[in-house]
Amino acid sequence: MPCSRLLPLLAALSATLLMSAPASAQFQKPEDAIKYRQGAFTVMAAHVGRLGAMAQGKAPFDAKAAAEHADIVQTLSRLPATAFVEGSDKGAPNRAKPEIWKEAPKFKAANDRMVDAVAKLDAAAKTGSLDALKAAMGAVGQSCKACHDDFRAEKYSQ
Amino acid sequence: MPCSRLLPLLAALSATLLMSAPASAQFQKPEDAIKYRQGAFTVMAAHVGRLGAMAQGKAPFDAKAAAEHADIVQTLSRLPATAFVEGSDKGAPNRAKPEIWKEAPKFKAANDRMVDAVAKLDAAAKTGSLDALKAAMGAVGQSCKACHDDFRAEKYSQ
Repeated sequence: MPCSRLLPLLAALSATLLMSAPASAQFQKPEDAIKYRQGAFTVMAAHVGRLGAMAQGKAPFDAKAAAEHADIVQTLSRLPATAFVEGSDKGAPNRAKPEIWKEAPKFKAANDRMVDAVAKLDAAAKTGSLDALKAAMGAVGQSCKACHDDFRAEKYSQ
Repeated sequence: MPCSRLLPLLAALSATLLMSAPASAQFQKPEDAIKYRQGAFTVMAAHVGRLGAMAQGKAPFDAKAAAEHADIVQTLSRLPATAFVEGSDKGAPNRAKPEIWKEAPKFKAANDRMVDAVAKLDAAAKTGSLDALKAAMGAVGQSCKACHDDFRAEKYSQ
């Protein structure tokens, strides 16, 4: 087999190692990974909800608070992906579908879209413009929904 | 009563409103506040644990990773205090002692010590020095333990 044919394999292997090795080393038990990602999502959802209320006119627009919420969401958005480690489909009640691991590249792409949308939300919130916030929230909401539709079960596993 | 005697009362009242009104408005149900603060603590503890492992020589010191962990901890450290709203002692299993509300100023002081210690940890981690990290972690650990000793029950409430 010529080297040129090995390169894509090596690249894929490296990507897998980069994604899984440091992450799995960070959690002693599957339960720890589950609680970590659920915790990150819970806090993130609370702040996305507060931004959503402002974007939808259900709460008064407060540019300073919006920037703070977006900053928190931005920090949290990068965390859950590190905790969908192999074997963490069980260990504590959770709603992770098997597709997360069976269709790992698709899941990674869905996660990346969320992280990207949140980065844009953070930038939009920093402008202090409600219109910019509204526009950015649309993409964030879509990225949440798309991933939930494909990768989150209706009911908890246990 | 002269105005000068009213000022401290007004200041105390304003501080109370600032602390409680926006926070309680941010959670629709006590359960939401409980899950939010538990989520924030779970994620924070995971990253404090990783920094602790480096500080204790149980994991290799990685200055870049340490700075990232400390940054996450710093963001999260400011969140739980917003979620110990009145009435959130019940609503979901939790370990909050009644003293959190009965001795609110003491709880606030304990929380402030944690936030301060974490801010110093963040600054220490940014220096890239393992010795600075070790020194700062000591104070963080003490602030965690002190608050848990006084305000966290051994068992969950439900």
